[in-house]
Amino acid sequence: MNEKIENLISEKRFNDLREYLESLNSADFPSIFEEVSDEKMIVIYRILSKEKAAEVFAELDSDIQEKLINSFSEKELKDIIDELFMDDTVDLIEEMPSNVVKRILKNVKNSDRKVINELLNYPEDSAGTIMTTEFVDLKENMTVEQAFDKIRKIGLQKETVYNCYVLSLDRKLKGIIDLKDLLIAEKDQKLKDIMNVNVITTNTLEDKENVAKMFDKYNFFALPVVDKEKRLVGIITIDDAIDVLQDEVDEDFVKMAAISPSDNTYFKTSVFKHAKNRIFWLIILMLSSIVTGAIITRYENAFAMVPILVAFIPMIMGTTGNCGSQTSTLIIRGMSNDEVQLKDYFRVVWKEFRVAILVALMLGLANGIRILIQYQDLKLAIVVAISLLGTVTLAKFLGCTLPMLAKKFKIDPALMATPVISTVSDMCSVLIFFKVATFVMGIDVNI
Amino acid sequence: MNEKIENLISEKRFNDLREYLESLNSADFPSIFEEVSDEKMIVIYRILSKEKAAEVFAELDSDIQEKLINSFSEKELKDIIDELFMDDTVDLIEEMPSNVVKRILKNVKNSDRKVINELLNYPEDSAGTIMTTEFVDLKENMTVEQAFDKIRKIGLQKETVYNCYVLSLDRKLKGIIDLKDLLIAEKDQKLKDIMNVNVITTNTLEDKENVAKMFDKYNFFALPVVDKEKRLVGIITIDDAIDVLQDEVDEDFVKMAAISPSDNTYFKTSVFKHAKNRIFWLIILMLSSIVTGAIITRYENAFAMVPILVAFIPMIMGTTGNCGSQTSTLIIRGMSNDEVQLKDYFRVVWKEFRVAILVALMLGLANGIRILIQYQDLKLAIVVAISLLGTVTLAKFLGCTLPMLAKKFKIDPALMATPVISTVSDMCSVLIFFKVATFVMGIDVNI
Repeated sequence: MNEKIENLISEKRFNDLREYLESLNSADFPSIFEEVSDEKMIVIYRILSKEKAAEVFAELDSDIQEKLINSFSEKELKDIIDELFMDDTVDLIEEMPSNVVKRILKNVKNSDRKVINELLNYPEDSAGTIMTTEFVDLKENMTVEQAFDKIRKIGLQKETVYNCYVLSLDRKLKGIIDLKDLLIAEKDQKLKDIMNVNVITTNTLEDKENVAKMFDKYNFFALPVVDKEKRLVGIITIDDAIDVLQDEVDEDFVKMAAISPSDNTYFKTSVFKHAKNRIFWLIILMLSSIVTGAIITRYENAFAMVPILVAFIPMIMGTTGNCGSQTSTLIIRGMSNDEVQLKDYFRVVWKEFRVAILVALMLGLANGIRILIQYQDLKLAIVVAISLLGTVTLAKFLGCTLPMLAKKFKIDPALMATPVISTVSDMCSVLIFFKVATFVMGIDVNI
Repeated sequence: MNEKIENLISEKRFNDLREYLESLNSADFPSIFEEVSDEKMIVIYRILSKEKAAEVFAELDSDIQEKLINSFSEKELKDIIDELFMDDTVDLIEEMPSNVVKRILKNVKNSDRKVINELLNYPEDSAGTIMTTEFVDLKENMTVEQAFDKIRKIGLQKETVYNCYVLSLDRKLKGIIDLKDLLIAEKDQKLKDIMNVNVITTNTLEDKENVAKMFDKYNFFALPVVDKEKRLVGIITIDDAIDVLQDEVDEDFVKMAAISPSDNTYFKTSVFKHAKNRIFWLIILMLSSIVTGAIITRYENAFAMVPILVAFIPMIMGTTGNCGSQTSTLIIRGMSNDEVQLKDYFRVVWKEFRVAILVALMLGLANGIRILIQYQDLKLAIVVAISLLGTVTLAKFLGCTLPMLAKKFKIDPALMATPVISTVSDMCSVLIFFKVATFVMGIDVNI
């Protein structure tokens, strides 16, 4: 794709270039712009039709958008902003540095400025920040034919025309009609007789993650957003809901790997920022592993007498940590998919307890037999087997309890995942192991 | 919701019950059916209108579907199957035990049987398995008015009417038209003059995860699926694509926590199955931690001479493991979002190398200072600081190399995540730590 474009530019075949570019999907442009020089990017962008240019612009990352805006005349900037959907303009304003924002606001139509200000003022992560104010609004007393006339007239600049919203005179949402329903209805039927009045809505202040989950559950194309007085103020479309779901998943992944989440992608995050995102949890977890070290020091004379005990520390710690993170991952995912609820706590603990016993028996048996064969040491075999039974059961218990406790206290459960569980289970596993060892082997810790 | 339903049933107010049930969204029923008794579930289901019943049925989990089918007469079963979309019928056949499948197939219309057999024969995880064969097909020479007539006649049983497909006489896909475009066109325009010929398609054998990613990139509502001869055989709708994306993410989460993925949700998986899904990786990882133990044993006289070294094992192992899993998680996510490509390998390594140096310097410094204060032991401080520099750099290197190597050899990168990286980095970290310690402290290992 890029080679063809580069060739057309260097051969100055601009008509062919335009034709080829117009045939591409606007979602193909971000990767093209990543790979060509800035000068060529501007050439490519300028050659697009006004409509295509706006479509492409909305797809681009903010650093590319900024470069383009800096190359625009005021006229070009105004053209783009007029073509952009309202929610894309708001996203743009939120991402740009203040000098660019000033230029953008200067070129916004007066009628749009108020709406943009309202959209900018919704609290972070609320439904208001991802909704668009452009939708097809119809009146209850319209006929089907009148509705079609209105859709033809206004619908084409709207982000979705397939769901239409029927409002009362004071803009309260009375019902919805799919374009499909209008198609089969008789021309002179009144909307109020055919509209669907069982409308599921959300409000401007709802958490956007909850909104995205509603899309996942109900398979909407668009969800109406109402204010406190139940007036329709906007709609959220499925593409924005999918983006929220994806962002949420990405955040869970990095949090579960003990990284502070960042808004940017891997390559767009600087080395310093990467280091900063990672060092916080590393320091915290390092401090806690010092406690584990201190526990080991306490049993110095145990491993002075039986040095082989030290060789089992990695296995005990590792297995316990893995068991804990298996459980915590399943529970965290279960909670974020709404399958596991706080009220299921005892059900989860009982299930994990039985899984733990099964898993620990297998691991204990495998290890016991290995030790008997390798070292012919029955006491050591018993120590390792009993320790595993204790540590695995405890790890599974912590693996479900900590994330659910976090949720109970409105802390993000993903923060309780793998590394936190591992560290807590490290301490406990070493403690259990040495307790069992000194007891079974009759070692006095306080010599 | 459930209380209201229970009350209406016990008061035998079935008309009110029907009215209330019809006002609910079909996606609300699975949670209702989870909580009522089987007898009440059948009462509730029977009271629904035929159309609602089919909608609700498609939303249910397979165990509930099976219970309902077992309560159906042949007539009731036929009614439901006639109303179901083709892809939902195929899903049902794939989930049910063979005696139920026989009953279903007996009640399928002859005309549908061939299509169902074809759908059942697409390879696992291919686009063919998630597509529906129901779509609006139009001809190039139709006028806009004829198109509307056809949509009105056939479109209403179709899963999506908003994208229409223009086919040649031999059913090759020539273009697409959105319902929106038809609305603004003149009645006597020919479809071939207004259709969009730049159609993005996929084929029946494409991996369904790649298809789902196309939805994410292009914001489609539906994607046409063609066979080898470019004939249109079906479409994939956005709701099915979202399900694929969600399943993929769930799979990545469990794989990254060293669990074998399962098709079922947490509670629907039995204790034995849970234990089975978890034990495989636990045994593998346990075996490898035995190697770490063996490395430690080799340095027995090092910690016999300097017992405090043992206390640093958890910190070194833990920090190294956490550093490795931070990197591997970012790289695995980056690859699954298509931001990180195999050709970026050296760019990634160079970035991670610089992050590692920054992080290691901070961790080494923090530890060195702590040791100087706590133990007044300069040699120990140097050993720990140098070890961290080595282990952190190595962990970040492994954290990006192993997942990318896995992808190169077509192994799932998620399998290389947290636990595998941790185990490899466990071995290396212990080895580096004792090598550095014996060298700096002048301990002879082979006494």
